[in-house]
Amino acid sequence: MREWSNREELLAQVRAQMHDKRYAHTLGVAESARQLAIRYGADPDKAQLAGYLHDYCKCWPVDKMFEILVRHDMPTELLEGEKELWHAFAGAIVIQSDLGITDPEILQAVRYHTTGRVGMTLLEKVVCVADYIEPNRNFPGVEEIRALAQEDLDAALALALGGTMQFLIEKKKTVFPLTLLAYNDLISLKRENRRV
Amino acid sequence: MREWSNREELLAQVRAQMHDKRYAHTLGVAESARQLAIRYGADPDKAQLAGYLHDYCKCWPVDKMFEILVRHDMPTELLEGEKELWHAFAGAIVIQSDLGITDPEILQAVRYHTTGRVGMTLLEKVVCVADYIEPNRNFPGVEEIRALAQEDLDAALALALGGTMQFLIEKKKTVFPLTLLAYNDLISLKRENRRV
Repeated sequence: MREWSNREELLAQVRAQMHDKRYAHTLGVAESARQLAIRYGADPDKAQLAGYLHDYCKCWPVDKMFEILVRHDMPTELLEGEKELWHAFAGAIVIQSDLGITDPEILQAVRYHTTGRVGMTLLEKVVCVADYIEPNRNFPGVEEIRALAQEDLDAALALALGGTMQFLIEKKKTVFPLTLLAYNDLISLKRENRRV
Repeated sequence: MREWSNREELLAQVRAQMHDKRYAHTLGVAESARQLAIRYGADPDKAQLAGYLHDYCKCWPVDKMFEILVRHDMPTELLEGEKELWHAFAGAIVIQSDLGITDPEILQAVRYHTTGRVGMTLLEKVVCVADYIEPNRNFPGVEEIRALAQEDLDAALALALGGTMQFLIEKKKTVFPLTLLAYNDLISLKRENRRV
């Protein structure tokens, strides 16, 4: 793994991939991820780094992302799904090849930051929730997720993923199955905990 | 297959399984299914019969349904999912054993009337939509589904399944994955059709 002891160099690379607003969001996610990591006992440095990297490909042309995903044999389900999901999977590939990031925990956190998945690690949850609640975010319901994120990370994530699914259904878009499975997983976990 | 030429005998059996309100709903679904079948070119008699039978187990004790599902090796996913789904899968089993129904089209229409599935047959769609729009139904959004059902069965079904998923998420309940896959299937179909 190439050493990213030089934070300025890394941020300059990230900065070059996106427009101003996306970069402000990126810095917000890195900071929120760091705070959540401290609160819930994940590695703050890894959370912050994953935050810096999570939207690396977000502003890239879809054709370029598509080509990367095809070259890496990503499932048809993803290629035929909503294009908004591609940047996360492409991002996890590109930050390895272009930046030399090899830490599997960070790569997974980038890969699943939009869809979620069943059995998410703490770091993955932290980055996913940070992506919803960073200070620049302003959508209906964000305050409830923000408040819940300080008390119960799983509940905040279930609320966030549930809200995303409701929004997609409202817009008559497909929902990536992994997101529903991630949501069900969190809801079932809550139910189990209540039973104990 | 035992002959159900005697409709009164069949209805008496159905009647004995449920309370008044559920029976009124049952008759409503049978009639709406018949009308939709005529409109879209499915078999009206099969649609009506599937309507009579679709909620056969709906008012049975959950323990009794659970026992039937376990005995028939239903997937864990179903057994650990919301109990509201059990009556459809138990129903498809019981109407075979207790009433001698063997027509696979009718059994499938009963089995998937609540969850939906990928690649639903016309008869399955008709029964599923009839279950949402029969005259006794009265929930927010029912009028839109009712109107759409007269023009576009797939669009009505996508709207209905989407609404159910939104409702479940609102209530912080899990969503049966098959329902999402059925919804995605219908949305993708619409998208394909628009491209043609």
